[in-house]
Amino acid sequence: METPWEYRYAHRMKGMKGSFIREILKLTQKPEVISFAGGLPAPKVFPVKEFQEAASRVLAEHPEQALQYGTTEGYLPLRELIAKRSARYGLKVSAANISITSGSQQALDLIGRLFINRGDRVIIENPTYLGAIQAWNAYGASYIPVPMDDEGMITSKLESALRKGAKFIYVLPNFQNPSGVTLSLKRRQELVELADHYGVPIIEDDPYGQIRFEGEHIPPVAVVDSEFRGQNGSFYDGNVIYLSTFSKLLAPGIRVAWAIGAESVMRRLVQAKQGADLHTSSFNQMAVYEVSKNDFLDEHVKVIRATYKERRDAMLEAMDEFFPTEVQRTHPAGGMFLFVTLPEGLDATELFEKAVKKNVAYVPGAVFHPTGGGENTMRINFSYSTPEAIREGIARLGILFKEEIYKK
Amino acid sequence: METPWEYRYAHRMKGMKGSFIREILKLTQKPEVISFAGGLPAPKVFPVKEFQEAASRVLAEHPEQALQYGTTEGYLPLRELIAKRSARYGLKVSAANISITSGSQQALDLIGRLFINRGDRVIIENPTYLGAIQAWNAYGASYIPVPMDDEGMITSKLESALRKGAKFIYVLPNFQNPSGVTLSLKRRQELVELADHYGVPIIEDDPYGQIRFEGEHIPPVAVVDSEFRGQNGSFYDGNVIYLSTFSKLLAPGIRVAWAIGAESVMRRLVQAKQGADLHTSSFNQMAVYEVSKNDFLDEHVKVIRATYKERRDAMLEAMDEFFPTEVQRTHPAGGMFLFVTLPEGLDATELFEKAVKKNVAYVPGAVFHPTGGGENTMRINFSYSTPEAIREGIARLGILFKEEIYKK
Repeated sequence: METPWEYRYAHRMKGMKGSFIREILKLTQKPEVISFAGGLPAPKVFPVKEFQEAASRVLAEHPEQALQYGTTEGYLPLRELIAKRSARYGLKVSAANISITSGSQQALDLIGRLFINRGDRVIIENPTYLGAIQAWNAYGASYIPVPMDDEGMITSKLESALRKGAKFIYVLPNFQNPSGVTLSLKRRQELVELADHYGVPIIEDDPYGQIRFEGEHIPPVAVVDSEFRGQNGSFYDGNVIYLSTFSKLLAPGIRVAWAIGAESVMRRLVQAKQGADLHTSSFNQMAVYEVSKNDFLDEHVKVIRATYKERRDAMLEAMDEFFPTEVQRTHPAGGMFLFVTLPEGLDATELFEKAVKKNVAYVPGAVFHPTGGGENTMRINFSYSTPEAIREGIARLGILFKEEIYKK
Repeated sequence: METPWEYRYAHRMKGMKGSFIREILKLTQKPEVISFAGGLPAPKVFPVKEFQEAASRVLAEHPEQALQYGTTEGYLPLRELIAKRSARYGLKVSAANISITSGSQQALDLIGRLFINRGDRVIIENPTYLGAIQAWNAYGASYIPVPMDDEGMITSKLESALRKGAKFIYVLPNFQNPSGVTLSLKRRQELVELADHYGVPIIEDDPYGQIRFEGEHIPPVAVVDSEFRGQNGSFYDGNVIYLSTFSKLLAPGIRVAWAIGAESVMRRLVQAKQGADLHTSSFNQMAVYEVSKNDFLDEHVKVIRATYKERRDAMLEAMDEFFPTEVQRTHPAGGMFLFVTLPEGLDATELFEKAVKKNVAYVPGAVFHPTGGGENTMRINFSYSTPEAIREGIARLGILFKEEIYKK
């Protein structure tokens, strides 16, 4: 009897591409490889002791609630805590504006489910976050790329993109994944005004906003939008869905993130989430709340900033020392990634195999350009490796780049 | 300035209905209401001490792995444990046949994503599980209902349904939600043969299979399928995707479930899950593994069976005592639910408000019939309430039914 699935039902399964990054991660898990490919937080900043205490307290004090089914919108004390913290950054929201999601990846998926019909267009920064593309490809999205410079999305080129028609605009304003670039305040204002003018909502994905090493905090796009609307005093009811996560503040293995938006939008998001996974783990939400209350996050984020700044500095220094001058790089003021541009004609995807042979890995930039381009770019993560490993890995990359550039 | 979402973008959001059950749950959360409406496990069977020890051990011994990103397919030792347990029930599988999901709800959603295009048909038992309908409505499914009797789906009526064309057949063979009915072995064999003949896969949803109070264990549909194919010795590669969950064996607040199927199907499921939530919480998977290893599940499932059997018995006894003879009910041999049928002409949805006024609640059966019908039926949960509350709640329902029947 033949194998039914492969031969008989393959045509029933809709096309869906695996994630290049995850394939790479498998390749680069040999211990001798220094990998700048992943997007992993440094394990040394995980608050292990605090999670142990929190898990134990939650199960001692609220065992039934922690182990039972919960509401789809999420654990109320956690949503109230997020509301309180958002107010500090200028965003006036109540718990009704906040939905807990199973990682920000789920929020991206739910947004696709709510907004995207096959063939719909989404305006993206070019390059942009691969996880969003992966989520929205499943709903049949196509993309309108807007180029970036050192101030992020070039808003003067946004209007022509908007004229092509789009369901929403997707931006990662702070220390963007993959570029490391931050959208300037002026550009945020232009973005908000243009989006309002064309009646197109904005998805603001901000996993790293609090992990800034230097320079002034810039208000989230949602806050700029709220100010643009003159929404003094009332809860947020504007044009932006703001996403953030505890993955980068506490630990990604917990899978707790949140979305903020107008109440009417959150209601739809919660309905979509019901069908997707009923709710995010009650136990995890309560543990995150226990860890986060009493201002632990404020102290902890300082540790993360110091750790990642040291690693970014080690990386910039090593790049200055080992990279040929023809190679360009961004200078991220926070977050976990920077972006490297090789001279025209070099292909980072072709180079990848040679890099792995030299025991160093990155993500070829082409994968972050869903409409093509970026062949000579790469994403480099600086949060995961130690400063010593960073120096050694960048030296290896420097040798490879020199070999490739000077043989040309 | 107007509220942008409500007025300007509402048309951009695809239609999606909220869950009637969850709305009911809110209504019935007053402490004086005895609710048979939810589908909640009894909190008294949650293995709290075991989870405390497991969480503490996982964070002490493997803190980095528990708090870091994990693989989409799931924690390997847990998948191996599931493979080993599945072998006991006659299903020969390796870890490659098993994917961890964030609750079975997510598996249902991913199956919708893989198989259902707008307008596609799904063959269901009538009535069927509401969560599946909710998941697949989002992908635009329509339904072909097959009626049930005391032996489950009436397979002699399946062939005409198959002739209408369907992407897959969805069955809950053991102690079905909502009916409490179990699919007989003969019907399982007929189902497998018909599905094979028409080249239509089967989704077997089995959250309660191990929670049997009486009678003989019946092999899962996947095992019947494997035997039908003469797959002696080789890993499962057949026509069934089998779903089960730790929600009913351990605790639903942990959100850890699993899918079993041919390797080729699991690869597609994992690709879809990447876009949906990257992976299920590493910490939770490891905690579930720690709790489950060393055969704790075997001991624990005996406690669940004894507890639920006592409650089911209390319910059957109370129904015999308090319900008028015109009211029919199923006799579940396991699980958490039974189904009540009122005389024709009575409407359980209309009665619901009167029931809540008498401080007792159920789920009107119409919601489990996505193509209409079932107005005179209701789902009654017996796992959550104590035997004393069950007796009192059924007495209240008995009074209501008598009032309604004898006034007619």
